[in-house]
Amino acid sequence: MQKNKITIEAIDWQPNKNSKIPLYQQIIDYISKKITSGAWLINDIIPSQRELANKFKVNRSTIVYALDELIAYGILETESGSGTKVANNTWSLLYNDNNLNWKTYINAGEFIENIPTIQIINELEFKDYIRLSTGELAPKLFPLQKFQKISSLLTNKITSLNYLGPLGLLELREELVKHLAKVNIKATTDNILITSGSLQALQLLSIAMIKPNAKVYTETPTYLKSLQLFQSAKINLKGIEMDQEGIKYWQINKDNNDSTFLYTIPDFHNPTGITCSLTRREELLKFAQANQLAIIEDSAYTELYIDEQPPPSLKSLDNSNQVLYLGTASKSLAPGLRVGWIVGPESIIKRLGDVKMQIDYGASSMSQWLMYEFFHSGEYDNHLQNIRQELKKRRDEILSFLNENFNKHASWTIPKGGFYIYIQFNQKISIETLFKKALHKKILLNPGNIYDYKDNNAIRVSYVYEDIETLKESLLVILKLIKSEEKQGK
Amino acid sequence: MQKNKITIEAIDWQPNKNSKIPLYQQIIDYISKKITSGAWLINDIIPSQRELANKFKVNRSTIVYALDELIAYGILETESGSGTKVANNTWSLLYNDNNLNWKTYINAGEFIENIPTIQIINELEFKDYIRLSTGELAPKLFPLQKFQKISSLLTNKITSLNYLGPLGLLELREELVKHLAKVNIKATTDNILITSGSLQALQLLSIAMIKPNAKVYTETPTYLKSLQLFQSAKINLKGIEMDQEGIKYWQINKDNNDSTFLYTIPDFHNPTGITCSLTRREELLKFAQANQLAIIEDSAYTELYIDEQPPPSLKSLDNSNQVLYLGTASKSLAPGLRVGWIVGPESIIKRLGDVKMQIDYGASSMSQWLMYEFFHSGEYDNHLQNIRQELKKRRDEILSFLNENFNKHASWTIPKGGFYIYIQFNQKISIETLFKKALHKKILLNPGNIYDYKDNNAIRVSYVYEDIETLKESLLVILKLIKSEEKQGK
Repeated sequence: MQKNKITIEAIDWQPNKNSKIPLYQQIIDYISKKITSGAWLINDIIPSQRELANKFKVNRSTIVYALDELIAYGILETESGSGTKVANNTWSLLYNDNNLNWKTYINAGEFIENIPTIQIINELEFKDYIRLSTGELAPKLFPLQKFQKISSLLTNKITSLNYLGPLGLLELREELVKHLAKVNIKATTDNILITSGSLQALQLLSIAMIKPNAKVYTETPTYLKSLQLFQSAKINLKGIEMDQEGIKYWQINKDNNDSTFLYTIPDFHNPTGITCSLTRREELLKFAQANQLAIIEDSAYTELYIDEQPPPSLKSLDNSNQVLYLGTASKSLAPGLRVGWIVGPESIIKRLGDVKMQIDYGASSMSQWLMYEFFHSGEYDNHLQNIRQELKKRRDEILSFLNENFNKHASWTIPKGGFYIYIQFNQKISIETLFKKALHKKILLNPGNIYDYKDNNAIRVSYVYEDIETLKESLLVILKLIKSEEKQGK
Repeated sequence: MQKNKITIEAIDWQPNKNSKIPLYQQIIDYISKKITSGAWLINDIIPSQRELANKFKVNRSTIVYALDELIAYGILETESGSGTKVANNTWSLLYNDNNLNWKTYINAGEFIENIPTIQIINELEFKDYIRLSTGELAPKLFPLQKFQKISSLLTNKITSLNYLGPLGLLELREELVKHLAKVNIKATTDNILITSGSLQALQLLSIAMIKPNAKVYTETPTYLKSLQLFQSAKINLKGIEMDQEGIKYWQINKDNNDSTFLYTIPDFHNPTGITCSLTRREELLKFAQANQLAIIEDSAYTELYIDEQPPPSLKSLDNSNQVLYLGTASKSLAPGLRVGWIVGPESIIKRLGDVKMQIDYGASSMSQWLMYEFFHSGEYDNHLQNIRQELKKRRDEILSFLNENFNKHASWTIPKGGFYIYIQFNQKISIETLFKKALHKKILLNPGNIYDYKDNNAIRVSYVYEDIETLKESLLVILKLIKSEEKQGK
């Protein structure tokens, strides 16, 4: 089992430099308290000397002194290769020699740990790193005035925040019926389940409607591969190649397994940016119909088009009820709302709603009311128009920057919407090494291999999170790293 | 497999009485559309004639006429015993003979359907029923003015709603550190994970930290038995009897299985209302320590004491780190916030946070900010004081009413806090029959057997949801039903 590495949030505690207690003693006390309180467990790896010195803003020698003391007490222990670990908890032994061994619990369940790279990303996103790949709009693109207006409206409208029914806030589902009708998706309120983001819709499907060992086809690379949801439910993901028209559906070799799905992102695909053509959509639907293949259509980026609307959704073209349609406010408006929706046949929606009631009793009513009011007031559509302009500006600037600087080293698809440019390097380099070297430069990036079925040669770049100038500077740093990797590869 | 019964939300559609199209034809068109759109699936049972007539506010004869037509077309089919089912979808066959058979998907996953009684309760709570057992405060007890004040504060404080880190909003965790310190629970922000209600904390534990086939001990009866979460993860629940002091822990026969837990609600137990005594708590902790038994302490009702604070929590008495502590705003403030927290060793919290990131990327930031501000402003504590007075008034009134009317027929424990009085009938009656008969009187109640390991003779009554007068009237109806059941039993 992988050793647990402890991280410390700087805000948590800082030594008091005006105290009469020496700094090294304060640090000894802090670490001791962490161990006796059970916050740090035996065999956990503590942060490195350098990290501790940075975190507590003290000299490294102070840290060395404190750690040496703790090692002398037998509290900590140096382990060659992996750092310093918690070896004992003498203080707690004084009053209790029977501490529970949580290590036997920590991975006992079937749900898999996140991919290590993603654990690092999730952790470091909130530290002082440049986020080159982050899948959300920059905080400054949040429509603050609209939010304030809508919050005030709601404050006078909401009279309580009780549990909601299994499918979520009726008023929100009514707005969604209208919203979906604009893109020719016919639904009643019984065809819509509100979820805590699209991710939860996928979770519900994975535990309720797909047999263990069943197959789920996806594009390759694909967002779904970066999750462990389906793997945790013992579902077999199968990657299908894409070309510039979309997924090469004819490579799907569907067997007679009962609950096979295709998961697809036809619009502004994550991570490649490819949009599936209308012809390919029509062919895919015919294929799905002939093969009794259910489709999960993830439309997370659909409304974030830049040049023109993408072709009609699979759901709107579907006359044989093959398609479950996922929508979300996370990409277009605010991920912190945790509001998504799944559209499908009433029985399916009812089953998923029943499961949702059993795992968290529904999504936040506060968030659902906010989303309702965003739709109802028309401000959601207004916001989208503003965002589309911003997306266009950002994408065009980054594309011309890439053309100038990267065209000898990499290729990419021009995204017609969404957040991402997927940069594929011409020469074979280690994408893991690039990730680590970028970290040392304080740049956090999403390597392509977390989305892929095999090792690859790509990174996902988002043009919506960091400022354009920061993005350009960081991309130049990446370019430098790439050049040096290329040399080494020769 | 159980047949899916279709329900119709009245708001969804109503026939137009001023239209030139006859009412029966409108109803035929409505049902046809439901079937061709895939909202109603083949073999689904449609609502009864009576229900349809009520829903559409038409004469039953109109419904009979419409259904007869649809049966004549072969679209519907009468099935003896279970009603009328969808038999065919001729319209859709006109343009497509290859509709996907969703029936093979609907229960393909491992997550179990909810207990049928609870599915009915979840559905009917939002219809016109008296809710005798509902586990939430009445909407009128929502602190509306405080909420409005806090919403206004927040509207000026929030600048965006982006994704949060794996453990949830840091500001909220900082407030929780202070809040927990008041009841002598020592924690740092790293020891706390924000969840979407306590239910999600249980879900996370069930999928991350408990082995399939491992045992989880609970009181009997217990709230946990009314969930299918643990069963869906193939965990074995084992019921342990209680007396008036709490769980008879000495009946736990712990084997050497790695990830055994005890799940307990020591304060104002759901559903029995029993509070575990201090002595029993101390003994239980010693037992847990000697047997390496981890404890999940559910404190959902702890702050809702009436007469005096309950004894110290297991968590605050625990000096061997055996206890994971669950807290929530759902019972004390507003379930619609979907904010709960789990307190435990840092490594455990980190593991659960990693899983939470993988299933829904965290709880609503809007809800978390609201909860933060409720704590920070002191309004949460003020609200609790008001609620305690209300609880006292309501409990005392219902207790004296029960003493007057029920004492020949039933017994109960006097709750010192929380929401529930658990009424156990003296004579053996069918609690399922009582549930159904009450439904006909438009009263929705939670029969004791949904919480129990065996059939039982009890109902859970909540004194916090309906008005006192409504409660009394409904209890008189129940009493009448009980008396008639008693007679039949003789």
